[in-house]
Amino acid sequence: MEVERDTVAVGEFEFECGESIPELEIAYEAYGEFTGENAVLVCHALTGSSHVAGHRTEGTSGQARAWWDDIVGPGKAIDTTEYYVVCANVPGSCYGTTGPASENPETGEPYGTDFPAVTVGDWTEAQRRLLDELGIPHLHAVVGGSVGGMNALDWVKRHPDHVERVVPIAAAARLDPQCLALDAVARRAITTDDDWQGGEYYGTDAKPTDGLALARQIGHIMYLSKASMDQKFGRRAAGRDAMRTFPVDPAGTFFPYRDVESYLDYQAEKFVERFDANAYLYLTRSMDNYDLAAGFEDDADAISAFEGEALLMSFTGDWHFTTEQSEQVAEAFREVGGPVAHHVIESDHGHDAFLVEPEKVGPPLSDFLEEGVDGTAITDTAEDDETESQFAPVHTSLFS
Amino acid sequence: MEVERDTVAVGEFEFECGESIPELEIAYEAYGEFTGENAVLVCHALTGSSHVAGHRTEGTSGQARAWWDDIVGPGKAIDTTEYYVVCANVPGSCYGTTGPASENPETGEPYGTDFPAVTVGDWTEAQRRLLDELGIPHLHAVVGGSVGGMNALDWVKRHPDHVERVVPIAAAARLDPQCLALDAVARRAITTDDDWQGGEYYGTDAKPTDGLALARQIGHIMYLSKASMDQKFGRRAAGRDAMRTFPVDPAGTFFPYRDVESYLDYQAEKFVERFDANAYLYLTRSMDNYDLAAGFEDDADAISAFEGEALLMSFTGDWHFTTEQSEQVAEAFREVGGPVAHHVIESDHGHDAFLVEPEKVGPPLSDFLEEGVDGTAITDTAEDDETESQFAPVHTSLFS
Repeated sequence: MEVERDTVAVGEFEFECGESIPELEIAYEAYGEFTGENAVLVCHALTGSSHVAGHRTEGTSGQARAWWDDIVGPGKAIDTTEYYVVCANVPGSCYGTTGPASENPETGEPYGTDFPAVTVGDWTEAQRRLLDELGIPHLHAVVGGSVGGMNALDWVKRHPDHVERVVPIAAAARLDPQCLALDAVARRAITTDDDWQGGEYYGTDAKPTDGLALARQIGHIMYLSKASMDQKFGRRAAGRDAMRTFPVDPAGTFFPYRDVESYLDYQAEKFVERFDANAYLYLTRSMDNYDLAAGFEDDADAISAFEGEALLMSFTGDWHFTTEQSEQVAEAFREVGGPVAHHVIESDHGHDAFLVEPEKVGPPLSDFLEEGVDGTAITDTAEDDETESQFAPVHTSLFS
Repeated sequence: MEVERDTVAVGEFEFECGESIPELEIAYEAYGEFTGENAVLVCHALTGSSHVAGHRTEGTSGQARAWWDDIVGPGKAIDTTEYYVVCANVPGSCYGTTGPASENPETGEPYGTDFPAVTVGDWTEAQRRLLDELGIPHLHAVVGGSVGGMNALDWVKRHPDHVERVVPIAAAARLDPQCLALDAVARRAITTDDDWQGGEYYGTDAKPTDGLALARQIGHIMYLSKASMDQKFGRRAAGRDAMRTFPVDPAGTFFPYRDVESYLDYQAEKFVERFDANAYLYLTRSMDNYDLAAGFEDDADAISAFEGEALLMSFTGDWHFTTEQSEQVAEAFREVGGPVAHHVIESDHGHDAFLVEPEKVGPPLSDFLEEGVDGTAITDTAEDDETESQFAPVHTSLFS
């Protein structure tokens, strides 16, 4: 598979908060061949990168490492022999696009916390600028999971005439207060780490790795479900080789170091090597702040100018972005009257499911890109209501 | 109401871990008059104290402050004109019973992290020692919520012949891995706080208040439900008077300080004034480690010697100690064959419900203490199965 991997400078960029940076650089990857009508923009999740598929780059891990390779590629659900697939790292992140860890050209030092506040709207506008540079006026589809699904919804809101089809997966119009609270605690874990140093830790010997590790662990728990954690770890102790990576007092060693702890510690340790703490602050705030209805009367009003087709996908075990939240978005599309389907996937995996269950995500996604909501692998909750509700006429008639 | 408030020294105490302390002091409160057959032991939750009811003591807050005054008192569900109600602070805590913050008589310094590891079994044995001191051989009932409900179950397991009735409320035979993980992250927040100083912060200028605050916030989120957080806070910004108590970088101020954050920050600030960080480490480990079946074949085997009656209560909105977990405990009691009821309370409140919905908890509790499982206000899931299941004969017959 041909991969285009580049960073383009798009000039001065004004953020939604009103502040500007003199030069925004955007790291992106693109796969396949552009024919004028076949561009698919993939929006990455919170800690993702532009490296969505293809050869796994040396030294990358987690979502920096070809994070959707099961879905994007030749003959895969987002088929790179048919579509020209573009994925760009978002502003505020730390995978090549300008963010807090990048050098401020005016000072020659990293921006640090002088970097402007970033919103999901800024992500969309940065992607728009990149696509302009690449000569892509129009998108066949925008696809994104998690906060990437919010990003996809934002495209429909901001550029309704330039998107044919949208696929928000495990997404929502806005986070609920429970998730806002957990994200807020995660940020406090970073900012109370003495090594955070008010965000100006670049170039010093210390980095807020403990705080970032804790933040990641809170996030990680949000991505899993009770059921998947039960199956994966239970309450069992970790293997004898497992090493505690966090300080523990003597009494603590009386109790087992559990498998679930060992897993979270190991994952966090890998994460702090690949991700920047300030970027984590900035991007979780982008996510928390996103509200599809902002500036409009309600969700339906926000997407009312969109005349394309929408496929919502959600997972029954997901408590971070719930099926109910996707259903609300589907309702908004229904209200507006465009073709829409909400495909609910039964899964014990939590929010993670959009990454770890490609065999369930792939078929409806592939069909939708080809045929729209009439694709054969696609189910819709609106149809479920008619056929399965116990209050439907067909059942009532049994009693009448 | 007459309140007996005292601390008794019960001599040397050997913990389950094998280590001893030369003198265990136990702080307790008792209400009502002991008649020989009317003692009710109330077991407090994680951060509770012996001060369960009565005049609110000056300078106390949260669960240190007459935490079940709506339930315990003259004419209330646990009627102190009928029952002699005893509540003792558990070993490892910081409300009068010996714990990490207490002075080690051998050194004249606080124990700190030299304090032995503490288990729920140690709590039970300490309570047993206290009751021996008070001349109470036999309990009419043991009642407890949350980990206090685990403590109550432990009584049935360890002293089956000395308990007539048991009421584990919003409890479980063991925590699930999701909650274990969140507790583990909470402990890491404390032990990675530089001010924790390996647990030897007593008498120094610094205390790990940031770490303890984060730990509490994680716990607090576990006690609430999505629905209650939605209703209570939504996504709205905090009032203009709300002050941020955690550090934030300049870009963070572009985004609202939300009501849900302000609430958690305020609660955490109060909590760190009243609770000891090491005690939080010790007691969460007691809870995480508890397993009713430990040392037995399974839960039913562990309680098989109990011939009294059991009332389980659980709340539909509780994701910390779920209704399913209480049902598993009820199944174990059913297997053993004793009278048992599992009373499920519909509530949008989460785990908190056992504290904040006394009007729902009171009637079945009161009836059970008087009449056992035949009390009129008590429902049972076993009966629900028969009358409500769509597969039950009464419904099927409509179609036959």
